[in-house]
Amino acid sequence: MNQVFETILARRSMRKFTSESVKPELLDMLLQAGMSAPSAVNSQPWEFVIVTDEAVLEKLRDALPFGKFHAPAAIVVCGNPVKARNPSGLMFWQQDCSAATENILLAATALGLGSCWVGIHPIPILPRLVRKALRLPPWVTPLCAIYLGHPQFIKNAKSKYDPAKIHYNTYRQ
Amino acid sequence: MNQVFETILARRSMRKFTSESVKPELLDMLLQAGMSAPSAVNSQPWEFVIVTDEAVLEKLRDALPFGKFHAPAAIVVCGNPVKARNPSGLMFWQQDCSAATENILLAATALGLGSCWVGIHPIPILPRLVRKALRLPPWVTPLCAIYLGHPQFIKNAKSKYDPAKIHYNTYRQ
Repeated sequence: MNQVFETILARRSMRKFTSESVKPELLDMLLQAGMSAPSAVNSQPWEFVIVTDEAVLEKLRDALPFGKFHAPAAIVVCGNPVKARNPSGLMFWQQDCSAATENILLAATALGLGSCWVGIHPIPILPRLVRKALRLPPWVTPLCAIYLGHPQFIKNAKSKYDPAKIHYNTYRQ
Repeated sequence: MNQVFETILARRSMRKFTSESVKPELLDMLLQAGMSAPSAVNSQPWEFVIVTDEAVLEKLRDALPFGKFHAPAAIVVCGNPVKARNPSGLMFWQQDCSAATENILLAATALGLGSCWVGIHPIPILPRLVRKALRLPPWVTPLCAIYLGHPQFIKNAKSKYDPAKIHYNTYRQ
């Protein structure tokens, strides 16, 4: 089967990592993948914080109720309409940053890394706590944290295909 | 280079298609890819409308100011918190559906198809017009239309990598 299609189907959330660190060159490849995402009117309204410092990772775990598990690295994907190339970022930053996040998850899977998308925005209070942990300015909004590492085990692909979610030409209720 | 990484970097927006139709089995593979996306608490708050009927495609073009170009097929990605597996869909459907959209774009690229993400939500009025065109119920919100077809030409990969968008451990202004 096509390797891309296979990787899309194989991506699973991983929350158990070995203690092995993630090489800087792999993290850089993941950001190349993230920044290759499409964005509305090519506004690229994103910024990325790579976290590998254990003290900062701990602050992140403290801030995130669904991110208490340990990973050797995290990429926090943020929206920043101020640094976007045009005002489309204001309306579409969530969608653009989500596409960037999915690219990072798929690239991680292809590189043999495990990953987990931990939601931040729009859960009340969490963006404020993460801003504090990472010293983000108030106009930068963390969308999610991607926890990354070498997986402790391999999860098999699990199909979520559901024909009931498909409509042809018009919606049938 | 890794085929997945290469495809992520190679994906470009395509707005010129040949008249060749997109085979139903390819559209089905794209939906398999879309439904393999992660979603908050696995709520899967998505639905997909495959549009290949020329009369409906025309209605879609009429509704979308940035989707006036001709494509032989479109997939309209919709959020439906009512059909989601849990209430997380209410908060995260935009992010979840964006991840599904990116999976579809990458799978299309891998299959040799051209694609373009045409934004709908949250542009004022557009969701209402698309609801009418596709007979969507009021609780289903179209996030975007993915126009699809066989590309008229090949676009080269274009790097958007920008080191100024990367921060390490904490934000530097």
